[in-house]
Amino acid sequence: MTPSSASRYTYLGPEGTFTEAALRTLPEAATRDLVPMVSVPAAFDAVRNGEAGGSFAAIENSVEGGVSATLDELATGAPLMIYREVLLPISFALLVRPGTALGDVKTVTGHPVAQPQVRNWLAAHLPHAHWESAASNADGARLVQEGRYDGAFAGEFAAARYHLEPLVSEIHDTVNAQTRFVLVGQPGRPAAPTGADKTSAVVWLGDDRPGALLELLQEFSVRGVNLMRIESRPTGGGLGRYCFSIDAEGHITDRRVGDALMGLKRICPKVRFLGSYPRADEVRPQVRPGTTDAEFTEASEWLGRALDGRI
Amino acid sequence: MTPSSASRYTYLGPEGTFTEAALRTLPEAATRDLVPMVSVPAAFDAVRNGEAGGSFAAIENSVEGGVSATLDELATGAPLMIYREVLLPISFALLVRPGTALGDVKTVTGHPVAQPQVRNWLAAHLPHAHWESAASNADGARLVQEGRYDGAFAGEFAAARYHLEPLVSEIHDTVNAQTRFVLVGQPGRPAAPTGADKTSAVVWLGDDRPGALLELLQEFSVRGVNLMRIESRPTGGGLGRYCFSIDAEGHITDRRVGDALMGLKRICPKVRFLGSYPRADEVRPQVRPGTTDAEFTEASEWLGRALDGRI
Amino acid sequence: MTPSSASRYTYLGPEGTFTEAALRTLPEAATRDLVPMVSVPAAFDAVRNGEAGGSFAAIENSVEGGVSATLDELATGAPLMIYREVLLPISFALLVRPGTALGDVKTVTGHPVAQPQVRNWLAAHLPHAHWESAASNADGARLVQEGRYDGAFAGEFAAARYHLEPLVSEIHDTVNAQTRFVLVGQPGRPAAPTGADKTSAVVWLGDDRPGALLELLQEFSVRGVNLMRIESRPTGGGLGRYCFSIDAEGHITDRRVGDALMGLKRICPKVRFLGSYPRADEVRPQVRPGTTDAEFTEASEWLGRALDGRI
Amino acid sequence: MTPSSASRYTYLGPEGTFTEAALRTLPEAATRDLVPMVSVPAAFDAVRNGEAGGSFAAIENSVEGGVSATLDELATGAPLMIYREVLLPISFALLVRPGTALGDVKTVTGHPVAQPQVRNWLAAHLPHAHWESAASNADGARLVQEGRYDGAFAGEFAAARYHLEPLVSEIHDTVNAQTRFVLVGQPGRPAAPTGADKTSAVVWLGDDRPGALLELLQEFSVRGVNLMRIESRPTGGGLGRYCFSIDAEGHITDRRVGDALMGLKRICPKVRFLGSYPRADEVRPQVRPGTTDAEFTEASEWLGRALDGRI
Repeated sequence: MTPSSASRYTYLGPEGTFTEAALRTLPEAATRDLVPMVSVPAAFDAVRNGEAGGSFAAIENSVEGGVSATLDELATGAPLMIYREVLLPISFALLVRPGTALGDVKTVTGHPVAQPQVRNWLAAHLPHAHWESAASNADGARLVQEGRYDGAFAGEFAAARYHLEPLVSEIHDTVNAQTRFVLVGQPGRPAAPTGADKTSAVVWLGDDRPGALLELLQEFSVRGVNLMRIESRPTGGGLGRYCFSIDAEGHITDRRVGDALMGLKRICPKVRFLGSYPRADEVRPQVRPGTTDAEFTEASEWLGRALDGRI
Repeated sequence: MTPSSASRYTYLGPEGTFTEAALRTLPEAATRDLVPMVSVPAAFDAVRNGEAGGSFAAIENSVEGGVSATLDELATGAPLMIYREVLLPISFALLVRPGTALGDVKTVTGHPVAQPQVRNWLAAHLPHAHWESAASNADGARLVQEGRYDGAFAGEFAAARYHLEPLVSEIHDTVNAQTRFVLVGQPGRPAAPTGADKTSAVVWLGDDRPGALLELLQEFSVRGVNLMRIESRPTGGGLGRYCFSIDAEGHITDRRVGDALMGLKRICPKVRFLGSYPRADEVRPQVRPGTTDAEFTEASEWLGRALDGRI
Repeated sequence: MTPSSASRYTYLGPEGTFTEAALRTLPEAATRDLVPMVSVPAAFDAVRNGEAGGSFAAIENSVEGGVSATLDELATGAPLMIYREVLLPISFALLVRPGTALGDVKTVTGHPVAQPQVRNWLAAHLPHAHWESAASNADGARLVQEGRYDGAFAGEFAAARYHLEPLVSEIHDTVNAQTRFVLVGQPGRPAAPTGADKTSAVVWLGDDRPGALLELLQEFSVRGVNLMRIESRPTGGGLGRYCFSIDAEGHITDRRVGDALMGLKRICPKVRFLGSYPRADEVRPQVRPGTTDAEFTEASEWLGRALDGRI
Repeated sequence: MTPSSASRYTYLGPEGTFTEAALRTLPEAATRDLVPMVSVPAAFDAVRNGEAGGSFAAIENSVEGGVSATLDELATGAPLMIYREVLLPISFALLVRPGTALGDVKTVTGHPVAQPQVRNWLAAHLPHAHWESAASNADGARLVQEGRYDGAFAGEFAAARYHLEPLVSEIHDTVNAQTRFVLVGQPGRPAAPTGADKTSAVVWLGDDRPGALLELLQEFSVRGVNLMRIESRPTGGGLGRYCFSIDAEGHITDRRVGDALMGLKRICPKVRFLGSYPRADEVRPQVRPGTTDAEFTEASEWLGRALDGRI
């Protein structure tokens, strides 16, 4: 990777999306070359190919759920690792060409995932407006600029870029709607633990093993590791074949987490470690008695003594 | 509901989609009025409002995973129940205007979920073709008819409707790709058990209960009920708040299934029963010793005797 | 059973033992004919044969553990049920013939289970005294009366009967030593629940089923029923073949307890219900959310509605 | 320890018991000085004090269950370790003075644990004989020699020592009755694994932790380690306070066993390792996929690579 490619971060474009806004909250973004890409696979492949040092994409939305493209790109292809996460509250502005009044808005557009978040607002304020989906919120803004639609739901920050005005701001049917984004890079040593960390992995279960998911969860629970997210994804091997994308509390260097991951590795046909990184919410886990690093170390030493007969 | 509305089945349109093709595999479809709708919510609301007797939509795809719109519509709003499922193998045809040769195809379209299933084929046969997504596969066909694109990936059955020709057939990157569809209706008595049945439900877990998912699974495992699918969906209450959409082997009238559902009902803040219906694959479950209806009945009788001191 | 035999209670004799002392704490004992028997089997068989209305025996000691004879008699033969339990603090007196001084005591006796409870006291106060076991504490007292030994460890209440004197009282190496006794009778309807009840059972596990004990415990834990005691007993079928004698919190009429018992009945080759009866310590259990009778009833009603499609 | 004390093995005497017979099945017994002791504590204390190199005692009987004295001596006091186990089929002979006929036998004796194994035989053949318990089977033989009783139930091997004759042999109500004996020594490095090994430990559970036993079992089950025996013993801290004496399949050097022991060590207030030693029955365990040493090693290496980002 050249110095210039290392300083390049790709993201799911176009410019003006929430993804770009989230990416810009990273301090280092100021010194990076931020390059919009047409798809998550394209954005991530740039990292795989050494053309970029990192890539940034939404992975989960509190209204719409997991972002399949991101989850699937992380689960397959050359391995990547997550190094950072960003949470962004999602609210929309209705962007219009300057001079447009609310009563003039007959057609609106936006990314399909925007629709459920503005549906109620539309029903209340523009019940007769016709919705058509755009490829992205920013693309919707562009189409308004071009005159194809009267209004676009997008982040307020997108207005300037497309010479539009926010007619209404802070539109969000669901309070606390958030999107979670991740910064991925080529595999490397995880960031040092902060005490408020998260570990992500993808786990494949053996075929036709009823109870395999229960066993997976028990590898965590027996070591006091809480799961924060578990999402099934099809493996592509047919209906009923799933892998699970999981986020667990803690860092891979926490003994309880490393031990649980090794348990998964042993019982599952395939495990892909996706990284340990600081939690954006900075919440520190409650560690159950018996699962601290000190207790793991003490137990190892005890076993060592027992193996020597020094009990 | 009027007789005419009872005989109306809505589905996620437009005409010419895989959904319509799957719906037409139901024997009763021949005598129903099949009405395409613009969205899953619209299709299901027609049933809720009494304007249709049933509605049909994809719920899961072996490549793309759960269909969020369907899962979320079933989880929220006025209750509906699933009465039937249909499995449809998914393969695409490249539809073109008559006379188009492969070398003429510069732009292609299709539903976003079609893309990952034709990506490899495109890379191999049309590496320079430009893809743009359409709102549906059928919509893509229409856009080809209108001349906006050179080719559309859609079901071969859509060709005639849009005066197109299948240039290539049986395109599917993933062997065994299947989509599962469900027929929903207003809540009612489930169909009689066939011996090869499936039970669907949505289960909300209490907030901030680490281990709640494990407890959910144990309610099934302790009674020998296998889970066939489990999918997390956000509740809309913020990141980290999920409900789970599940399919379990067996029928609600199977004692082990009814008992497990009651267990969920007791430990979870909310459970929504979505129906028991015949499995499309007609696979009969292996019932673990100790979990047959006869054994449940025997245990009940034993308890009755013990309560009377007749041991 | 004749009226006179119904009013007869047998117990493990001879007279003057802790068993008799514990039995006399029952209010009804005042109006019963209390008959000492030579063995637990003999005492219990009198109930089985209709010669007695009840029988009383120790089942557990906080120092020595379970009383095998009682556990095994309850597990085999014609069924009996437990109707009452009594806790008796155990402390010993050193009984001697009148006029004996501590320095005169060269030989001491008592029941084998008394020895570990007086061992430290002996080492401190009579380090050179020779211990020989007697068939019972009372029998030891009789042997002192006959001059065979100089001192007997027994309950202080036994002194008068054998014309002995308590030379030292309140001897007990272990603070809080207690013995638990049970009153058994022919099977009948359990006493009404008091809110602080205990349920006893014997459970056989299938041969060669690793994990069968875990499954047994899960039938309780999944329904929030705490186990208070679990004791393995050989089945007589060879080493490695065990049954388990268990005490669970709650009454068989508590839905969570009845449900757990039915679970055992289904998964185990044999379950013997031994009764539900008031806890001597009158401690009321903490009932986990989701396991109250009201929640069981509510879940049943919910299932009933689901079966009818009234969701 | 002097060479002479190292070559001394104590056992629960007197001579002529099954314990001595079992001890003599050990090849090394031929070169050891076998010393009968009056009690299990005395026999084990000789090892603790360096007066003996080993001690031998029964720990479990397929009819009577665990031998409390042995279990409790292993659980408390200065630590000891088990190095060997011996299984001995138990059948009794009725030993009489020469010339005694069956019709002459009016009084019989034997160890209390012998009684349930000869009860049926007595009922059938000597229904009127009076039983009194002796301190040991060998002691009973001595009392017959002294003329106190007419017959003693003991091992046939005891006849010669007490100048008695076996009047009837092979008496055992229960087919396959066996006693398991253990050879204990001062703590030291366990014997090398044979592939058919057993690991013993005593585990204390935290007070008032409902579900603590379930957690204990899960530490084993999640790592595929089968429990062969689990026996509750009172801790002496009052009714309801137990520790558990357990035998698990496998050797402490098996990764799955060592890992499970460390899990116990972490979650339990106290664990005492009692040794890993060859199974007398030489049965090799079925090792569940995912729990072999190779898989543990592979998982450790995988974790090491993940910590370095080499995924």
